[in-house]
Amino acid sequence: MRLLQALSKFAASKSLIRNVRAAFSQTPLTSDTYKVERGNYGEIASEDISIFSDIVGCSHVVADPSDLEGNNIDWLKTVRGQSKLMVKPKSTKEVSEILKHCNERNLAVCPQGGNTGLVGGSVPVFDEVILSTQRMNKIISIDPISGVLVCQAGCILETANKELAGHGLIAPLDLGAKGSCHLGGNISTNAGGLRLLRYGSLRGTVLGVEAVLSDGKVLDCLSTLRKDNTGYDLKQLMIGSEGTLGVVTALSILCPQKPASVNVAFLGVESFEKVLKIQQCARKDLGEILSAVEFMDSECMRNVTHHLNMTNPIADCPFYILIETSGSNASHDEEKLGRFLEEVMDAGIADDGTLATDYTKMEAIWGLRERMAEAMLHDGYNFKYDFSLPTDKMYDLVRASREHLKGICKSVVGYGHLGDGNLHLNITCEKYSRDIHSAVEPFVYEWTSRHKGSVSAEHGLGFKKRQYMAYTKSKEEIMMMKKIKQLFDPKGILNPYKMLPDNF
Amino acid sequence: MRLLQALSKFAASKSLIRNVRAAFSQTPLTSDTYKVERGNYGEIASEDISIFSDIVGCSHVVADPSDLEGNNIDWLKTVRGQSKLMVKPKSTKEVSEILKHCNERNLAVCPQGGNTGLVGGSVPVFDEVILSTQRMNKIISIDPISGVLVCQAGCILETANKELAGHGLIAPLDLGAKGSCHLGGNISTNAGGLRLLRYGSLRGTVLGVEAVLSDGKVLDCLSTLRKDNTGYDLKQLMIGSEGTLGVVTALSILCPQKPASVNVAFLGVESFEKVLKIQQCARKDLGEILSAVEFMDSECMRNVTHHLNMTNPIADCPFYILIETSGSNASHDEEKLGRFLEEVMDAGIADDGTLATDYTKMEAIWGLRERMAEAMLHDGYNFKYDFSLPTDKMYDLVRASREHLKGICKSVVGYGHLGDGNLHLNITCEKYSRDIHSAVEPFVYEWTSRHKGSVSAEHGLGFKKRQYMAYTKSKEEIMMMKKIKQLFDPKGILNPYKMLPDNF
Repeated sequence: MRLLQALSKFAASKSLIRNVRAAFSQTPLTSDTYKVERGNYGEIASEDISIFSDIVGCSHVVADPSDLEGNNIDWLKTVRGQSKLMVKPKSTKEVSEILKHCNERNLAVCPQGGNTGLVGGSVPVFDEVILSTQRMNKIISIDPISGVLVCQAGCILETANKELAGHGLIAPLDLGAKGSCHLGGNISTNAGGLRLLRYGSLRGTVLGVEAVLSDGKVLDCLSTLRKDNTGYDLKQLMIGSEGTLGVVTALSILCPQKPASVNVAFLGVESFEKVLKIQQCARKDLGEILSAVEFMDSECMRNVTHHLNMTNPIADCPFYILIETSGSNASHDEEKLGRFLEEVMDAGIADDGTLATDYTKMEAIWGLRERMAEAMLHDGYNFKYDFSLPTDKMYDLVRASREHLKGICKSVVGYGHLGDGNLHLNITCEKYSRDIHSAVEPFVYEWTSRHKGSVSAEHGLGFKKRQYMAYTKSKEEIMMMKKIKQLFDPKGILNPYKMLPDNF
Repeated sequence: MRLLQALSKFAASKSLIRNVRAAFSQTPLTSDTYKVERGNYGEIASEDISIFSDIVGCSHVVADPSDLEGNNIDWLKTVRGQSKLMVKPKSTKEVSEILKHCNERNLAVCPQGGNTGLVGGSVPVFDEVILSTQRMNKIISIDPISGVLVCQAGCILETANKELAGHGLIAPLDLGAKGSCHLGGNISTNAGGLRLLRYGSLRGTVLGVEAVLSDGKVLDCLSTLRKDNTGYDLKQLMIGSEGTLGVVTALSILCPQKPASVNVAFLGVESFEKVLKIQQCARKDLGEILSAVEFMDSECMRNVTHHLNMTNPIADCPFYILIETSGSNASHDEEKLGRFLEEVMDAGIADDGTLATDYTKMEAIWGLRERMAEAMLHDGYNFKYDFSLPTDKMYDLVRASREHLKGICKSVVGYGHLGDGNLHLNITCEKYSRDIHSAVEPFVYEWTSRHKGSVSAEHGLGFKKRQYMAYTKSKEEIMMMKKIKQLFDPKGILNPYKMLPDNF
């Protein structure tokens, strides 16, 4: 009954929902920029709620607007949807029944995991039904011999990692949002993160995916085999498709052995050219134990120490580089790391440095890098970019943006996964303005496109960046993607207004 | 003129080609088993030859039957096609023009690389035009900093590897056919091979693919970026699709650093259970330097030493296991390997063993494993299988087959990539007979399917195994694959009769 009452509350506003622009309350940026019309979808009626309640149980259908607040807004608080209904299934069968009904009724659906995405892909835009995987959090199996974890899509990465540790394993990915993000969401967005350099992308480590298609059919590609060459690898279409082709309900993933020894070196250098030299030395000296190469500039350090009251463990330098090693033999690793540090210090490539071998010190150093996004939010309005570039070009974009935006913006900072050529460019200003926005974009996109980069290395396109796909992908590719979308989801009910650009 | 004369020679036989069964001269197996009707494709006319000659030049259009002999038959000499024409383009543009013409004229096409496949995927079945990539062998670039190789599809793996070595790099894959196979073919078949355990599958290491679609459109996904999350990863559809969705014309691939130190240990043990124990010890002790774990049984050893006059370097044992390490520091690697060997010998897990640190001895040991397929061919008629199974179940299939085929077959042997759960099951008999065939199949397929294995771990399905897809893939998956095929190649001109099963 509570559900039906809640429904009647918003029934009155239905005409408003139809064909209005997406409204986002938190920042002026979104409402101005992302002009989008509601698609011609059905509207939720009381019978739909009854049916959803029959499928998942009354208590797992949420219609109270205040209960939906957190699900309608993204983590960065930059986009706000208007969904009036969230359904929380427990099983693949329930997801299948929900989608079958939505497809029949032409109801749009926004699949949602931990809602930690940075491009507005996991929040509704209009009145899409939120399909949450939060109750689908079961670990199905962990095989310590093969290293394969099988779990439901709603497993939180950190929870899975803790379970894996008990079997001497670790997840092959790690990211700042690990405490909230769901593994199903990681797969749907092809999450990158901090371990990609060492363990490769999810395209190689994910062995199986089970997904429900728009019509409710279950696509069971939940293999646990390391090799399988029997036909097209359909699961790859689910990886990174941001919920537009199907809802990931379960997955299997190959997990490496938990390293016996982890060390972190933090070095300060005077130029980006020297950052690159250190990376080359690290590759040579550390070889197979190298597990992360991250960098940040002095502006980043100023922001993270100032806003979050953190401490720079070394002398002030124009650039900082974090090198992590993970290996099976502590004394071998320390010897390799010692030789590397000696080389870069003796040759005058690094100006200062510190080595962390105990957990607390390592955590403190990683904290500087992992809390960077948070620190920048304290600096004012953020324009955030996640570019992939040839490594030697990575910092040129920061320099070019700084030059281009001189006197217009507050900070232009660069940090990111050096080892993967992944630059997180952050531009801050006191307050959003259309003029500043026009100065920043399309400048940064055009620069990236000109240098054969990608406008989204790991965050995806979601709602906020979808219109920029053509800076990285050809018309031919985009047309083919649209055809694939049409094939998998003829009515377009799955995560509409996301990933695929209009006007193609 | 020579081409036109050659064409007239086979014009008379056109009516024979139409709607006949595929005829294969070398073994009775294929003509009986692979009942297939020629599709309703166009037939090559003299104008087609003129057009192809205009595109690639007269000397690169081959119509002389004797010149086509090697291209009409597979490496194992188990399938024979009836193609009367091969076209050898030099560039993507030429491939595009050829396919555009074939699509307009509804001419079927068989893309062919090094023609080293084991499932008849790279040879024509009827009169398909052979589109050979042998002239597209240019290395476009090697970046020693990022480790990215960009090359045309017809580059031979070994040639690329030699070039890479000059930059301190190696290809992330290695296989027995390296001297002939093309990298474009490796990608089209998602080749596995000997380095997969260490460097992962091509799904993770291939960064970019350029392919020409059936209508001649070029799908340019030739990125060299390690990360790119802007839309569906279309190149994944080209990887492993065996030329049925497009013709791969160029690729970029992430190449690891050439290891400074490589060692090989060869151990003899008394049971498969101990083989698995050794694998576990190797994982623990060798960790990040472990680069291959291969195994073979005593029947394999008997065949390879007997037929190829090779030497078993250790005492006769029921099972043999080959462990390879690759690392950046020779003394560390030797210490790790020493500790590992001490552990498995002291604990009585291994009965005998030898260690190779010099190239010649390593080559000799690897030779036992790499020439196994060849050795088995000397033992009589071969039924060859390439199964993926949970590692602990791998050898049960060999035992079950031996039991099931007692008195019927000559040898039932098992060897393969233990680290990847990839079993190469070979069954030999004096001479092919339908009775033996019926005893072997579907027994082995059903067993594999029952134990959730894959009926093709790395060889693909090609022509010979396509009807067995349903032992591994669900009806839903197969239907979706067929829809994707229809989307990419509406007329079905690309490598017909391959990979996708009939009757779905």
